[in-house]
Amino acid sequence: MKAFCEGIDLSDAVLKVVKACATKTVTPVLECIKISARNDKLIIVATDGEISIQKNIKAEIYEEGDVCVPGRYFSDFIKKLEGVQITLSSDDKKMDIIYADSQTAMQVLSANDFPKIDTDINENSFSMKTADLKKFINATSFCCAGDDSRPILKGCQFVIKGKEISVTALDGFRLATIKGELISSTGDMEIVCPARTLNEIEKMIDGDGTTEIFVQKGRILVEVDDTVLTSRLYNGDFIKKDNIIPKDFTTRVKVDKSALKASIERAAILVRSDKNSLIIFDISSDKIEISSNSEIGSVQEPVKAETNGKDIKIAMNSKFIIEAVNALDEDKLVLSFNSQIQPFICENAENKERLYLILPVRTMNNA
Amino acid sequence: MKAFCEGIDLSDAVLKVVKACATKTVTPVLECIKISARNDKLIIVATDGEISIQKNIKAEIYEEGDVCVPGRYFSDFIKKLEGVQITLSSDDKKMDIIYADSQTAMQVLSANDFPKIDTDINENSFSMKTADLKKFINATSFCCAGDDSRPILKGCQFVIKGKEISVTALDGFRLATIKGELISSTGDMEIVCPARTLNEIEKMIDGDGTTEIFVQKGRILVEVDDTVLTSRLYNGDFIKKDNIIPKDFTTRVKVDKSALKASIERAAILVRSDKNSLIIFDISSDKIEISSNSEIGSVQEPVKAETNGKDIKIAMNSKFIIEAVNALDEDKLVLSFNSQIQPFICENAENKERLYLILPVRTMNNA
Repeated sequence: MKAFCEGIDLSDAVLKVVKACATKTVTPVLECIKISARNDKLIIVATDGEISIQKNIKAEIYEEGDVCVPGRYFSDFIKKLEGVQITLSSDDKKMDIIYADSQTAMQVLSANDFPKIDTDINENSFSMKTADLKKFINATSFCCAGDDSRPILKGCQFVIKGKEISVTALDGFRLATIKGELISSTGDMEIVCPARTLNEIEKMIDGDGTTEIFVQKGRILVEVDDTVLTSRLYNGDFIKKDNIIPKDFTTRVKVDKSALKASIERAAILVRSDKNSLIIFDISSDKIEISSNSEIGSVQEPVKAETNGKDIKIAMNSKFIIEAVNALDEDKLVLSFNSQIQPFICENAENKERLYLILPVRTMNNA
Repeated sequence: MKAFCEGIDLSDAVLKVVKACATKTVTPVLECIKISARNDKLIIVATDGEISIQKNIKAEIYEEGDVCVPGRYFSDFIKKLEGVQITLSSDDKKMDIIYADSQTAMQVLSANDFPKIDTDINENSFSMKTADLKKFINATSFCCAGDDSRPILKGCQFVIKGKEISVTALDGFRLATIKGELISSTGDMEIVCPARTLNEIEKMIDGDGTTEIFVQKGRILVEVDDTVLTSRLYNGDFIKKDNIIPKDFTTRVKVDKSALKASIERAAILVRSDKNSLIIFDISSDKIEISSNSEIGSVQEPVKAETNGKDIKIAMNSKFIIEAVNALDEDKLVLSFNSQIQPFICENAENKERLYLILPVRTMNNA
């Protein structure tokens, strides 16, 4: 392979693509960026086996060919050559990066070992306002499971019915769901997309326009400004959210978001070294008494609230309630409870598009 | 103790003082902030045994007394009470923090166990332009040793003779020194001040004014806006820099800083996982050939330079040369060498107030 291109183009492409490189893998080629010289362009692609990102740039091609270079070394190196023109020239053993009067050689791996990336994904699709898609991802993906014990929980479920879309994530301790409207879709579908993929998509997309997501045979494709992201989807049964979100509640509380947030955050400080970072809500007439207790000390703060229904005392992981409150965006929030061992719900007071469900923690007092 | 104060005052003081708290110590009281109520003020202080920071704030004192509270928990908690008025009330077992309708209790340790902080330090002093002091600290402290094998190398040496001051740091592999003028001093002195202390002072001071540093009995004191920092100094013999900085050189090179920096940074990328991150300068007529070599690949870049004297090939740790080049501030730099096993020097081309000396690395080729 031999090609000539602008450093700024190569740097821009490589910095986008390198995000799909694997870290800490036993398959070195997944830590590589594959560069293919074809016709009048360089096709630059990386994949960790789950997600792939590809970008093509204009180049003068003197000799077609394919080569794999160490992804992070190559991207960090090319980033420092934005201002110059670059010739890439490779054989089986190394790739020469030639610029100004200088010459760098980088080890290569055979492009034959690089996974084949299927970008022929177009059977089904749906499109949303870009701002909505960003909002949907940010509202849910933080509630995905982080560990591998149930892989499907590392993804967000997208359910499309007619013009309606809902996105749901859960990790066994809490659930986030948001619903809204599509611009269009080719039909109803249910997919579970890895949170990592969604977070990369969220960073790629921007502006007032729309984003179209293509789906075919367990894979997804998004294209933004000539950058093409594909990812596998998760197979398997996702929890039916309607089965676990209660419809009726014995206690409802309307509360000022900023006052609630400040109190929870203070109460969380004293328990931040504890395993469950436990805080307690004691809800009675016109207030939530928020408390926490550890060997460092104890907090007890009343927060004014409009309360309806039975008094309740309930314990929870402070991290989950803080993240739910932060993800809601109205001045007033509504919390809905049934009992100290049943999941409870946090929502905006008015706009109910988002819902956060949190499993309480059983304590000695309420077990 | 019982006192009443503004949250904003307490928060401001606690956030300044907490920086002196110890982390990971076997002496829990050194992780505490000590609060003393006297007359019409609260005296707030922390120390890790080496450095201490103290700030007094106005308060209504109902009962005098002293108490120690867990430093980081207390500061993070008080930071979230900037907008309210706070009553602090303590007995032997706990301190109550009372605000709005809320009440928090925090565990306390006896103030009797807290080290006595001597702020009666005024025998000797010197004063500098604040901007100069910041510059002197930033130019040298990064070259101090990080480990405890020779504690005195964890400090910067200040040598004051008449109106002249020089500050020197070294870690066994490199040396940084800067010289300049004082505004005034009470006499000649030589002290070695911990880098950690200097970095805290650097963050405290600001503006166009002057800063006075007081010295007495192996301790140092700086006061800025009612915040008083004291620190112990290091005892022992510091290396005499004049004994190790060569005066004559066989090779001198004048080079464009930005071109040199860019080349070194690229060469460093390929060796960043290697122990010594070795890069090589091969200096011959009118250029420095910069190269590096690792299992990832190899770089070879010529950088144009005005060369004088013998050709030389010399290997060095890329981190040290990058940090020295970054700490110099003219467009042109001068590098001066004697042999591939003797220390070499980096300076600005014109202003010679700063000097960086670096020990080369012996390699198979030049051992």
